[in-house]
Amino acid sequence: MIGWVRIVGLGPGDEALWTRQVSDTLAQATDVVGYIPYVNRVADRDGLVKHASDNRLEVDRAQQALTMATEGRRVAVVSSGDPGVFAMASAVFEAVEAGPPEWRALDIQVQPGITAMLAASAACGAPLGHDFCAINLSDNLKPWEVIERRLHLAAEADFAMAFYNPRSASRPEGFARALTVLNEACGDNRPMIFARNVSLPDQTIRIVPLPDTTPDMADMRTVVLLGSSRTRIIERDGAPIVYTPRSI
Amino acid sequence: MIGWVRIVGLGPGDEALWTRQVSDTLAQATDVVGYIPYVNRVADRDGLVKHASDNRLEVDRAQQALTMATEGRRVAVVSSGDPGVFAMASAVFEAVEAGPPEWRALDIQVQPGITAMLAASAACGAPLGHDFCAINLSDNLKPWEVIERRLHLAAEADFAMAFYNPRSASRPEGFARALTVLNEACGDNRPMIFARNVSLPDQTIRIVPLPDTTPDMADMRTVVLLGSSRTRIIERDGAPIVYTPRSI
Repeated sequence: MIGWVRIVGLGPGDEALWTRQVSDTLAQATDVVGYIPYVNRVADRDGLVKHASDNRLEVDRAQQALTMATEGRRVAVVSSGDPGVFAMASAVFEAVEAGPPEWRALDIQVQPGITAMLAASAACGAPLGHDFCAINLSDNLKPWEVIERRLHLAAEADFAMAFYNPRSASRPEGFARALTVLNEACGDNRPMIFARNVSLPDQTIRIVPLPDTTPDMADMRTVVLLGSSRTRIIERDGAPIVYTPRSI
Repeated sequence: MIGWVRIVGLGPGDEALWTRQVSDTLAQATDVVGYIPYVNRVADRDGLVKHASDNRLEVDRAQQALTMATEGRRVAVVSSGDPGVFAMASAVFEAVEAGPPEWRALDIQVQPGITAMLAASAACGAPLGHDFCAINLSDNLKPWEVIERRLHLAAEADFAMAFYNPRSASRPEGFARALTVLNEACGDNRPMIFARNVSLPDQTIRIVPLPDTTPDMADMRTVVLLGSSRTRIIERDGAPIVYTPRSI
């Protein structure tokens, strides 16, 4: 058997958002590797071995997947959302670059998925409908000063913005600092969207003017979007629509 | 029959990249509305009426879809990629906001798809694996000065970047100007990726150091990615891997 690694995106949660490519890969895999809750999303079947590991062990997990592929296993590395957006693809390639030469010869493919910001955007309208940026607010892997600088420049460029990993138990103060910077840099009432458990039955979408936001509105199951200065809200019976026009 | 509008993303081209949600919607629709080549991607079947229109008629198309939904039709508005990224979702909501009150009462949903930049990123590794931005280079709907300013600020923020609509027959000079700005603002050899016909059988991926890029490397079937200052290339037999590490 010739081994391979497929780094696949499971989307934000609902299996109806898997691509057929990803479903086919999971049907052919001998092994699934990933963070515990993502591995749990893949149904058990005969011939499939699941290797679930804890958060922050991305490079260990990547090494395990690459090692198994050299042994002829067909390994699916699963990420939530899209594997190329703050997820496992970069971790696997970091391991490949630092690893033994035979890992470079492996058949490795990334298979895209619906990333959280685009599912969140779809759930409330089209707030990312014009130029936008995506920023990981976790300061595990970069200093806070870099994050703050990016927030300032993104506001100056008038990007709509998407924020991943806004808040965790180990970094309760980071998101509060981000909100302070954004209020200062934007200086207006543009809407911030808190999308929690997107696509799941208990999805919640909360739309709040930036000056009225508070840090507790986000947790690790929330992706946060922020409109540009041009973003509009259409009021109606039921949930309002938030969208950014295509111009400027 | 109660009408609805679903604004759906068909992904970059390969039907294996459709989500099941989108397949189900297309199976239930009575009408498909969109730009000619995208409507052509949907298979004919009894009971499905196709309404294909030319490029740049986004708002006309949106009005047509909304009107049909008020008449009880189940209308799928199709976009390539993701409907919320430089595509039909914002056009539909522009029409809703400017239209008659009954349009606000309609059942309208956006259903996400695999957007071109993420399919392109997957095809060459993970160049968007850390903070990044997406910029539409078309100056149909915004002045060139806004684009140029965003390019400068995005380089200053050290975002990886994705460029949609880099070049068209009607704007042959725009992409040349963008390359000049980017070379000046970045001042290094970071890789630019030209991904043409992503996911289709004739897909091509070209990885070129920024100073060696030329405007003719992109056309309207190309999505262009640019690494950050940290982006790395793993050389190997066969296609190299381009990825941006998760840190800084």
